[in-house]
Amino acid sequence: MDVIKGNLVFSKSLNELVIRENAYIAFDDKGIEGIYDSFPSHLKDANLTDYGNALILPSFCDMHLHAPQYPMLGIGMDLPLIDWLNTYTFPTEAHFADKEVARRVYSVLAKELIKKGTTRVAMFSSLHTDATIILMEELEKAGVVGYVGKVNMDRNGGVNLQETTEESINETIRFIKESKKFKHLKPIITPRFTPSCTNELMEALGRIARDYNLPIQSHLSENVGEIAWVKELHPDTTNYYESYEKYGLWNSRTLMAHCVHSNEKELSAIKDAGVAVVHCPSSNENLTSGYARVRKMLDMGITVYLGSDIAGGDHLSMFDNVAAAIRASKARMKMDEDNTPFLNVEEAFYLATTAPASFFGDKTFEKGAPLHAIVLTDDNLPTVRKLSVKERFERAIYRQEENAIKAVYSENKRVL
Amino acid sequence: MDVIKGNLVFSKSLNELVIRENAYIAFDDKGIEGIYDSFPSHLKDANLTDYGNALILPSFCDMHLHAPQYPMLGIGMDLPLIDWLNTYTFPTEAHFADKEVARRVYSVLAKELIKKGTTRVAMFSSLHTDATIILMEELEKAGVVGYVGKVNMDRNGGVNLQETTEESINETIRFIKESKKFKHLKPIITPRFTPSCTNELMEALGRIARDYNLPIQSHLSENVGEIAWVKELHPDTTNYYESYEKYGLWNSRTLMAHCVHSNEKELSAIKDAGVAVVHCPSSNENLTSGYARVRKMLDMGITVYLGSDIAGGDHLSMFDNVAAAIRASKARMKMDEDNTPFLNVEEAFYLATTAPASFFGDKTFEKGAPLHAIVLTDDNLPTVRKLSVKERFERAIYRQEENAIKAVYSENKRVL
Repeated sequence: MDVIKGNLVFSKSLNELVIRENAYIAFDDKGIEGIYDSFPSHLKDANLTDYGNALILPSFCDMHLHAPQYPMLGIGMDLPLIDWLNTYTFPTEAHFADKEVARRVYSVLAKELIKKGTTRVAMFSSLHTDATIILMEELEKAGVVGYVGKVNMDRNGGVNLQETTEESINETIRFIKESKKFKHLKPIITPRFTPSCTNELMEALGRIARDYNLPIQSHLSENVGEIAWVKELHPDTTNYYESYEKYGLWNSRTLMAHCVHSNEKELSAIKDAGVAVVHCPSSNENLTSGYARVRKMLDMGITVYLGSDIAGGDHLSMFDNVAAAIRASKARMKMDEDNTPFLNVEEAFYLATTAPASFFGDKTFEKGAPLHAIVLTDDNLPTVRKLSVKERFERAIYRQEENAIKAVYSENKRVL
Repeated sequence: MDVIKGNLVFSKSLNELVIRENAYIAFDDKGIEGIYDSFPSHLKDANLTDYGNALILPSFCDMHLHAPQYPMLGIGMDLPLIDWLNTYTFPTEAHFADKEVARRVYSVLAKELIKKGTTRVAMFSSLHTDATIILMEELEKAGVVGYVGKVNMDRNGGVNLQETTEESINETIRFIKESKKFKHLKPIITPRFTPSCTNELMEALGRIARDYNLPIQSHLSENVGEIAWVKELHPDTTNYYESYEKYGLWNSRTLMAHCVHSNEKELSAIKDAGVAVVHCPSSNENLTSGYARVRKMLDMGITVYLGSDIAGGDHLSMFDNVAAAIRASKARMKMDEDNTPFLNVEEAFYLATTAPASFFGDKTFEKGAPLHAIVLTDDNLPTVRKLSVKERFERAIYRQEENAIKAVYSENKRVL
């Protein structure tokens, strides 16, 4: 049994932030044994790591990001979605046909995720099966757990980044079978977005998701040009989401990134199906997609998670993306001029920690849950008075000194 | 004579970004001797530092920031301006009556500025003269140059943060005299903002600025509540700016932070007087002040600079603030729905480098100008193809690996 000690800060729900100062978390390889306010006498033989005055937060879940776009992080931010995809993104992803490129880039990405405190992901790879398996190998080695999807795209991909329908189906099945070797990483069905997949492919993917009992991830209503394009491709639909729904790609294990422009009907369909929205504020700002109505979604009872969406987003760190969610929500408030309250720090933090943990079937900082945690120090930041743990937590979201993250735990193991 | 070699990227004007690959800058303690595409033979005895493939950028000017708010960076971001001032800011600034607090905080701040590549500033201190002199000592020691203002506030300051009118005037004169000892730091007249200064004090400050031939900095039209308050305090004015103008605090050496809500008349008055607007996008987002019409200002020929405005802003690094200016400009475009083009990377960079350098009387990367530069490496960031210097420059704005800044030069001296 191991025990770590520090100042715990975590969300029980959207509005309930729990702070337990100088508390002890006992855990072993089966998960958290208990959380205590003083060192538990029945654990006297346990191995204690005392992190002193440090903050111990749940580590982050990044519920939407594109691994092969990592090398272009921070480039090409002056274009809207479709132009950005064709000019920068697709040519970059095409390089991942080369397994050496995949190994080199993904080994860096996996370590960076851990270094920044992200231990669980729902991630897009490229369409390349081999590169996707390499990505999963590197994530597993670094200690990142979660879902990875081989991307499907059998139309509108451009030079060197398109499969035939048959290839796409066969490679998806090969990908699912090969990914059985991983302990902590699982496959997820990943049609890139409706314009990238023929109806035949969509139908096959719906069937595969059902046959193999797999979750699904894609993009929805990110950009007005994209929405108009989907409408052209599916003239029988009134809303973008129907292009997923009609192929069995719309259920309570579906993640849909963005939903910036989802109207009342689409939001109701999201709610009714139990689809989770992955809000990607940094990406939506950069590509001028718009500002999602997150408060409205939450008020409707829709499940919302956060995603960095690199490389539409420009920061891998979920600390930055939590701050971006608050900022985007303030912009939304200014636009609507209706004083809808913006997301506060603990609400945005919840969307990146406790909320998405449930997608993996996990509770957060509870007996029986796996330990996913960040240990963060801030002793070197100057203060003029003693800050409360709550204030230190808020400051940690907005700023940290370099190397403030002293330890990261993933799936009950220290990985940094 | 010293010579540094690398890939130069700098702005000649708003729309002209100059890239000189593998170029040489020769300089001595009088400034830049010349910039060359090959090593100049007449300088064969000079001391060459070859930075290889690194980028060499002009270092940043931060034209609006509050030094005593540094300890609260990233705290209290959920309140609008006036509540935020009273709840967090004024109590924090009050601590700077203590010289030890000032020494401890300002020594960290000064070093952090250099570490992040900011070498010139126009900075607010608190109302405390002694702490202000300590701030200037620490900036000079670290290698930061520019203007620092002892803040004036003889009303509405709250507990422990207010002077009498007489004290404020006398201390301003003491501050000006004591600051003569600095080689690279100069005083600037700094009425906090109209609600903080009685008419009598404003009048005296206008006189002092004239008598001592000093520039002026303050805040203008940041927040709608603030603007209404100024109107109440000065019922004879139609616009906020008049409360400065009528006391001789409105001229071509005046810096006005924010101008988020300045109307046509105020913008014209800014233009006509040659006042420079300091745009503080991060602060304006955090405190929900709004989104300044920067494109419109630039089109009118108004001088615009950038400021981090810590601690309304949450990042000291001007790389982050350049990215914030682009982002805020995209939000402005979305709000106006008029397709006004947003600021691109080189435009926003210009506002933080070449534009504000002229406030200090300096050119940028030209013969005769003082050398202010950042040397930045990015070799450890993964790529899938050779990036152009322009792309590397864009990526540097949005992201850097830790410790990417390898050297900083300020006023012809290497300071990092």
